[in-house]
Amino acid sequence: MSELRERPTHRPAASPRELGIGMRFSLHPHCDDFVAVILGALNDARATAEAGDLVVESDDVSTYVGATAVPAEERLVRYLAEVVVAAHRRSREGHVVAHVLLSRGCPGETTCDLALTGLPVVEPVRVPATGVECRAQWSLYPLLDGGPEGSRDHMAHIEAAIDAARLRGVASEPAHYATRLGGDVAEVLATVADAWTAVGAGVPHVVSHLTLSVGSPSVGEEAAR
Amino acid sequence: MSELRERPTHRPAASPRELGIGMRFSLHPHCDDFVAVILGALNDARATAEAGDLVVESDDVSTYVGATAVPAEERLVRYLAEVVVAAHRRSREGHVVAHVLLSRGCPGETTCDLALTGLPVVEPVRVPATGVECRAQWSLYPLLDGGPEGSRDHMAHIEAAIDAARLRGVASEPAHYATRLGGDVAEVLATVADAWTAVGAGVPHVVSHLTLSVGSPSVGEEAAR
Repeated sequence: MSELRERPTHRPAASPRELGIGMRFSLHPHCDDFVAVILGALNDARATAEAGDLVVESDDVSTYVGATAVPAEERLVRYLAEVVVAAHRRSREGHVVAHVLLSRGCPGETTCDLALTGLPVVEPVRVPATGVECRAQWSLYPLLDGGPEGSRDHMAHIEAAIDAARLRGVASEPAHYATRLGGDVAEVLATVADAWTAVGAGVPHVVSHLTLSVGSPSVGEEAAR
Repeated sequence: MSELRERPTHRPAASPRELGIGMRFSLHPHCDDFVAVILGALNDARATAEAGDLVVESDDVSTYVGATAVPAEERLVRYLAEVVVAAHRRSREGHVVAHVLLSRGCPGETTCDLALTGLPVVEPVRVPATGVECRAQWSLYPLLDGGPEGSRDHMAHIEAAIDAARLRGVASEPAHYATRLGGDVAEVLATVADAWTAVGAGVPHVVSHLTLSVGSPSVGEEAAR
């Protein structure tokens, strides 16, 4: 083997824009004045979005947030934690659910050409504790391209992510199609973001979905039992 | 090449249980009496779940529904359409969002061993029109295993699914990380289910996520412009 072949390739890491690092989230305050709660929460976190150079675009179903500067993932998660906690504080009974889709590696809907781009290795995100507990269900999708029948590559990534979340004390029991998470909103979001970036160091296109619930009366019922 | 090699393999198609065909959904009525709306809607559709031999298990974050009999996907979608419409009718202002995860090919959290099982070819689902319009955002994830760098297999599946949804008149413009859908709740759910089963005829593990919104005041605002 030639020396040339064994030398690792050093390609410049792709920027957040080139990787299409961002998220979609929808916010569901379970109260009659949900419009005021949603708009209020987005407004409460606007300064954080601006300071983080995040692109925020809301439509009739969800809100897109695109990152333009590093550390991209930390900026996204800090903003999201602020929005969720603001909605929780503003809503009448405090029950708010957020659905979150984190995506990297596929900037457009139908283009996904990152084969020649270096994938960044990302430090774990640092997110200040919020003091607000949540329950969540989490899924992680490494979008590999087809290989030999019977290999289990995509599940190996998922299993490693679940193991890491268990070590942090955030993942509890498995559920069908998802892993149950619990803890401070900041720690749950950080766990999900770190798993997403860890897979993203080796796989260009990685998506993660999270359903995060705060202030649920179901949890109160369990505690009262 | 020997005749033997060219002959297609005929393996018995996996059952819904073996494939782990099912879904998780969460229901978000945006009103103060959300608990009554959610429990009422689940109760309204209970007879359909029982008649369809569906396994329904709710927890504090979402509801799991597992299929045990064919046509598995049609049973799931008919039940879900009924739940969503019931919640819409029961909620005060009618604004309800459902978040849906459809999954096939990975029965457990960390087991995904279907290499030796035949994948079923599924007929398009038939779902009666509900008369309730919705807006939705949809993502489809073919979970292939790793192959040669630079191949674009997983995106080819996604592009074909979006083309099919456009032909049905259900998909509108693309958005970051999702495709926007609109139409009768039944037709939107059928489009998503048919895309999921079409990919599932060739890829064992396929997941699809959908955020479906009915009765949104944002839509009323747009219409009034």
